[in-house]
Parts: sequence; C-alpha cells; structure tokens
Amino acid sequence: MKNYTSVHDIDNINSWIKEARTLKESPLSHMGLGTNKTIGLLFFNSSLRTRLSTQKAALNLGMNPIVMNVSGDAWGIEFEDGSVMNGGTAEHIKEAAAVVSQYCDIIAVRAFPSLTDKAKDESEYVLNAFIKHASVPIVNMESATGHPLQALTDAITISEYSKVAKPKVVLTWAPHVKALPHAVANSFTQAMQKMDVEFVITHPEGYELNPDITGNTPIVYDQKEAFANADFIYTKNWSSYKDYGKILNNDLDWMVTAEKMALTNSAKFMHCLPVRRNVVVADAVLDSENAIVIPQANNRTFAAQLVLKKILENL
Amino acid sequence: MKNYTSVHDIDNINSWIKEARTLKESPLSHMGLGTNKTIGLLFFNSSLRTRLSTQKAALNLGMNPIVMNVSGDAWGIEFEDGSVMNGGTAEHIKEAAAVVSQYCDIIAVRAFPSLTDKAKDESEYVLNAFIKHASVPIVNMESATGHPLQALTDAITISEYSKVAKPKVVLTWAPHVKALPHAVANSFTQAMQKMDVEFVITHPEGYELNPDITGNTPIVYDQKEAFANADFIYTKNWSSYKDYGKILNNDLDWMVTAEKMALTNSAKFMHCLPVRRNVVVADAVLDSENAIVIPQANNRTFAAQLVLKKILENL
Amino acid sequence: MKNYTSVHDIDNINSWIKEARTLKESPLSHMGLGTNKTIGLLFFNSSLRTRLSTQKAALNLGMNPIVMNVSGDAWGIEFEDGSVMNGGTAEHIKEAAAVVSQYCDIIAVRAFPSLTDKAKDESEYVLNAFIKHASVPIVNMESATGHPLQALTDAITISEYSKVAKPKVVLTWAPHVKALPHAVANSFTQAMQKMDVEFVITHPEGYELNPDITGNTPIVYDQKEAFANADFIYTKNWSSYKDYGKILNNDLDWMVTAEKMALTNSAKFMHCLPVRRNVVVADAVLDSENAIVIPQANNRTFAAQLVLKKILENL
Repeated sequence: MKNYTSVHDIDNINSWIKEARTLKESPLSHMGLGTNKTIGLLFFNSSLRTRLSTQKAALNLGMNPIVMNVSGDAWGIEFEDGSVMNGGTAEHIKEAAAVVSQYCDIIAVRAFPSLTDKAKDESEYVLNAFIKHASVPIVNMESATGHPLQALTDAITISEYSKVAKPKVVLTWAPHVKALPHAVANSFTQAMQKMDVEFVITHPEGYELNPDITGNTPIVYDQKEAFANADFIYTKNWSSYKDYGKILNNDLDWMVTAEKMALTNSAKFMHCLPVRRNVVVADAVLDSENAIVIPQANNRTFAAQLVLKKILENL
Repeated sequence: MKNYTSVHDIDNINSWIKEARTLKESPLSHMGLGTNKTIGLLFFNSSLRTRLSTQKAALNLGMNPIVMNVSGDAWGIEFEDGSVMNGGTAEHIKEAAAVVSQYCDIIAVRAFPSLTDKAKDESEYVLNAFIKHASVPIVNMESATGHPLQALTDAITISEYSKVAKPKVVLTWAPHVKALPHAVANSFTQAMQKMDVEFVITHPEGYELNPDITGNTPIVYDQKEAFANADFIYTKNWSSYKDYGKILNNDLDWMVTAEKMALTNSAKFMHCLPVRRNVVVADAVLDSENAIVIPQANNRTFAAQLVLKKILENL
Repeated sequence: MKNYTSVHDIDNINSWIKEARTLKESPLSHMGLGTNKTIGLLFFNSSLRTRLSTQKAALNLGMNPIVMNVSGDAWGIEFEDGSVMNGGTAEHIKEAAAVVSQYCDIIAVRAFPSLTDKAKDESEYVLNAFIKHASVPIVNMESATGHPLQALTDAITISEYSKVAKPKVVLTWAPHVKALPHAVANSFTQAMQKMDVEFVITHPEGYELNPDITGNTPIVYDQKEAFANADFIYTKNWSSYKDYGKILNNDLDWMVTAEKMALTNSAKFMHCLPVRRNVVVADAVLDSENAIVIPQANNRTFAAQLVLKKILENL
C-alpha cells in the first residue's frame, strides 16, 4: 500500500481487522519499523483524537511525529493551478507538498470541506493535491468526503463487540447546531458495505448521503423502525448533501434517547466524537453501559498504527 | 502517588527536596522508567517555563511528551454536567478526559481561573473533572487555585540557598497591571507551612488570601516591617480574594526595590516568573546577585521530574 | 563555533559545503552527538521549511526538538532595557533567554524585522538579546537582517548544480504584493561573496540593499542584461532599504519569465520559498526542469544539520 486515503484502500477488511487486533495486543512489537522515520501531521483543521492517536500510533512504531497547524504555524496554501498569487495565499501546494516530502517519510493531512462549494469539495482538491505533488505516502486524517482512519476504527470496534455472526448496524443521523461534513458517514457506510453485517441508514428526508456511496444500502426514514433489533447504533450528524451544506428544518426529534435505544437488541452506542451531549445524544445513552465510544476512540490508535505499519513495510 | 494536584500530595517535603536534589545531580539516571510512556501536556492557557520544563523533565525520564493547546488545536470543552451542548463547546470533558487517557500514560493540565466566578474557580472544576473522568494520573500544571509544581520548585530552591537552620521567608504582594490568580501564592504558602522556616506574608489590606490556606501564618500589612531580617523575599502579585478578582486602589508603593531589599538579611529574591520589570520589582533587584529567579526556574525541571518519577514508579 | 547567527560564522565556506554534502550522504552517521540533548525552536514568526527541516536535522543528530510559537504559546516578550513593563509584554528577554537556556542545550530563534524602524531592525535586538542573555548557543532561523541557514543551503545547492568552475550567479529582485525583509538577499549576497562565483545583483533603482553588505558586488539595473550567460538565477523580493520597508512604484516588469530565462546559459532557477507563483516567477519557469527549488529546500536539512553538528561538537 502506498497511500491510505479512502476505505477503498482496504483490500480485505476482515484481515485488516484481525491484524489490528493483534497489534492492539502488543502495540510495541514493531518498534523497529519506524526507527529514524518521520511522519508529518499537517492540520488544516482542529483535531483532538486524530492528533493524539496518530502521534501515539507513530510512537508505537518507533517513528518521530512532527505536528504542524498549517495556517497557524505557516501560512495560507494555494491549491489552484495557474493562479496569480497576489492574494491571501503565500505558497503553492506544488512546492509545499514536494518540500515537506523531503523532511517526512509519510505525510498525514486533515482538511475539511467548505460545505459551500460541492464540486470543489468532492474533487478532494487538498488531499489529491498532496497525492499529486508529494513524493511520499499520504494518509487521510479526514478529508472533505472521507475519514477512513475512523471507519477502520469503527470496523475494528464492531468486530470486538459483536455477539452475533451478522449483526444489524444502523447509521443514524442526529441533530446538531452546526452544519457538519459527510466524511464520517461516508466512510462508515463504505466500511459497513465491506463487512458481513446487516447495514441500514436512517435519517430525515433531505439528508440522503451521496447515492454513489450509499448504493444499495437500505435507507429508512423512520428512525424507530430502523432501530428495531439493531445490535449497533452508530450516530452522526451531517448537513444536507442535496441542498449542499444546509441544515434543513425537520431535524428536531432525531436525538438518540434511552427510549429509542430500548427498541434495539440492547445495541451498543457508537459515535466518532466529539459529540454534543443532549443535542446529538442524551446523557442517559452516553452514560449507559451500552455506550462504547471510549473503547471505540481507543481503537483510533490501532487503526492508525496498522495503516502506518502497512505503509512502512512498503517504503 | 497517583495524581499530583496540590501541595498536599507531598507526603514529606524534606525527603522530596532531598530526592529532587539527587535527581538534579544525575538527571538521566532513571531514563528507563519512562521508556515508551507518553505524557500529554494539555494547555488551556499560555505557558513558557511549565511548557518547556515539563517536556524536559519527561525527556529526562525517557518519556514521549505530546503537547496540545486545547482551544487552539482542538475546540471548546464542556465541563457542566447535564448541559444541552448547543453553544460554543463541542466536546464534554467526560469524553475528552477518558479518550486522552487512552493515548497518554499521564495527563498534565494547565487551566487558570476565571477570576469572576469565585465559587466555580474554587471548585477546581477543570482539574477535578480530569481527575474524575481520566483513567490515568493527573498532574496540575497550574490550576485555578494552586501551582504545586512551582511550590515544590520553590521549596527545593530555598533548601539550596538557605544559609541558616530556620530562614525567614517573606511572601510579599507586589503591584501588577492585570488581575492575576492566587494559585502561586496559595501553593507557596502551603509549601512554606510544611517547611522549617519562619514564614510571613505581607500585602496591602484587602489582599488577604483565602484564610483556609493562610491559617496561622502571620500577615503583616507593613511591607518594610515584614522585610526586616528576611532571608528570602518571594514576590508575587495577586488580585483581591475578598473582592474577588479585583485590583484595589492602595497598590502603588509595593514594588520591590533595592531600598526595601536593604532592610533584609541580604535576602535572596525569588519570583515564579514571568515578572514585569519595574512594576513588580525594580531592575536593580532583579539584576542583583541576590536575585535567584533563574536557578529557581531551572528547578522547575527537577520538581516536575520528581513528580513524574513518583507517578511512573506507581503505574 | 558557539553561535550561528550570520554567514560570517562560516569560517571556510568550501569546507562547510563539502562537509554538508558528506552529511547528506549518510545523515544518521552522527546520531550519538545529540543523544539526550534538546534544541528549543522559538518562533516569533511563521515558518514551514525552517520549522520542519531544523526539527529533521536535530532528529538526524539524535536530539530532542521542542517547538514553541512564542506569542501564541506563551506571551509578549520585552526587549527594551529599563522599561516599565506596564503594557503588552509580560516577560523580559533577560529572564526568558536565561530560563530557556536551562531547558535546552541549543536555542534557535526566528524573528522578522518590523520594516518600519530601520535602526531597531538593524540592531538585531531580538537575536542579540538572545545572544546576550542566553547561556547556550544561539542559531539564527531568520532574523531581521539575515537568514544564514538559507544562505548555507544555497551555497550547498550551487556547488551541487554547478557545471563550470566559476559559475555566473545572479540575484534578481522580483515583484511581490507585500513588503518583505532583506534577510534572505543579504545572507545570499554574503555567501556568494565568499564563493568562487561571478556574482551580480539586479533590481530596479531604489531597491539597493544595504551597501555595507553589497560592497563591491556589481549591481545591474537592467534585468535582461544581468541574466545574460547566467548559470544560476536566484530570485527574491525585498522592500526598499533606502525608503525603508516601502514598496516602490517601478516594480511591474520584473517577474521572472521563461523569456528572460532564455537569455541565460540554461540557468538553474532558485528561490528560498515560499514563492508566489505568477507574481514573483511564472509557472513556466517554476515548472521547468531548470527549477531546482525543491532540491534546494531539501538542503535546508543538511545546512541545519551541519550547523547543529558543529555546535554540538563544541558543547
């Protein structure tokens, strides 16, 4: 594997899950792999879990992490080809990516979408510019349309907590005060489509994700119907895809509550975090024994570590 | 020892001082203790000495430090239980502390008081939320009401520079242009109360510290009287505790000057730094041979290193 | 060598270039030199290459880099002697430099000029305050008037790409939308004056650099004439030195284009980066095979590594 930019880079999700769980049992068993190797973590946006877990994963492999908040530590980066750079950007990605490639053996990038320019966001111009202009492997730490480190984390977590051969997994939309990206929902959908699960998406009408991604996955507009017999409730807000980046009106009743969780097969509650309590999900759910958001977040380390391991083995 | 959050966590200050001074003589003698262990330094507020010395202390023990400016690198953290998070905070401390605990073997936190809500500040809601919700040891890098790494530093420094069996130590208030916390003064007071020193506090009327902390420590309102025969002058500004967070009017004459230092027993001048020259203390004092603020700051490393060593030994 | 603050600290540029190129061939061959040593990188201004390459250089030598954005992570630093610090600065450089010296074995500093107060900028008050008040070696990561790590990089790069015994090197001014410092141009000039090259500077009238620096170096006001037979075109914008910090009017035609490059002896195109495309230089030049800005940037690591190696050997 060269880059890890999408769930499609996972060639065999079951073997990846198995390998990640083995890594988790002895996280320091491959420290030699990364010795004297450097990973640059470039953040165009805020981060807590990704920032810390990717550093931890790199350290577990013996690597030296170097972290940079691009806008705060350096300056605005230009992504448009041919532009006359007489405005707010001081360096073109052509130079930036090529230069950083010489200081780092792997580059990991976080860059959120605008949520205003659908075509530009869907072009994944930041991530793809790094892929094009960098000379080292690129890891997606959440891009405009995908968060494949999170999705791998989620797949590992579901495999750990599943009590049946083919669990029912429900991705449910939930309300939020801000317009949020589709990246987590997209990548989770793609991961579930690769796993042996019964996968259902539920959201209010108007919040359909990109149909190229959801494909044949059933969409249920009645949240309670979707929750019936679920083994996993994966909750996430996203803004409208059709009416791109907008918060629609019909949002109010979708918070995940204990009453709704009671409709499930004692389902585990998952969320990528950060989560707004009592907006996205009620305290009673998040504080219940069925919430597994904390061990889920722990798996961020081992998902990242597996990805870095695979890249290092291929350097 | 699990956490180090207050001077009260020092079970025997004399043996701690002795052990810190031994560490200082061979700072790399326990590098194996921290190998493959990670400390997360979480800053809710600015820092220079604490930021650098705690990293240095961790490195001296073989640990990997990971530094995060919480607000700038991540987002606003919610500390209120049961809140409906539809405002400016994006993640609850319940999740944040539990999650970070999985990436770091020790969490160190800096969080200053509001100086507007006395009850909330005194509840130490940030520090205590970390203690409650984290699953790893917590180190206080200055909280609303205490700065115990500084106080341990100060105790070590006084032991190094003391020429008499029972030195006279004076904590003097000094003017400042901004309203400052009580944390340093509180912890210094608590440390001096544990040591075999003659300890006196001097400040203008109205600047009394929390009486639960000062206890039986003599308070002298005449700065010159307090300075008489002093062996150590520890200078620090703080805002009013009674008229909480306010700067009172009667402040003007309290800058520490060479004239006032002449009243002492050739006292050493101490300050936790940063210090505003010619506001808190005159250049002539800070530039004199009796100023020991630089070696005092050097001891920050060994105070932190001792605390981390004790925690690591107990993991 | 104690400090590296100026090109004048290079005692023999040819032997330095040779040693840097040897380091480049086996960058990890001196890892023992920096073991358990710490370098503090203090940024008063933004940085990408310097930030990453200096960390990389330190890691290659086994050092622990600690990075701090001074204003963002800490607070405003006072540089004026005798000032009454009742304004925006919270700590004097006397304390800051002395304190940081105790946590770091080497301090590297970036501090740009004001471009408004010529005398103050030329006094190099930030860099010189660190030299005066720190007790450890100081490395200049770009100061008000010089960027000697860049100049050493440039010298290494020219030696690598030179096809003739005495190449013609042209430093050409180019337009920019912002008023920029003279540091890169100054240090490049000083480095070229030490090398066996035919060195020419070209810029519009009014953009003369400090004559104390340019000395006997020929200045040609006709850019095309200067380009004739050049082997290296080193491009950089700077603001007026005479009319200090100002952008003058006669700037428009000086962008480096393919047409102008055609006048040269198939010259290599160099720039310190970041560079504004189609303002400073046309895409056609930067995307041509003769542009060597990326390998030039790569040499930042080995220039920094050589400097740190020389300092470490002398500790």
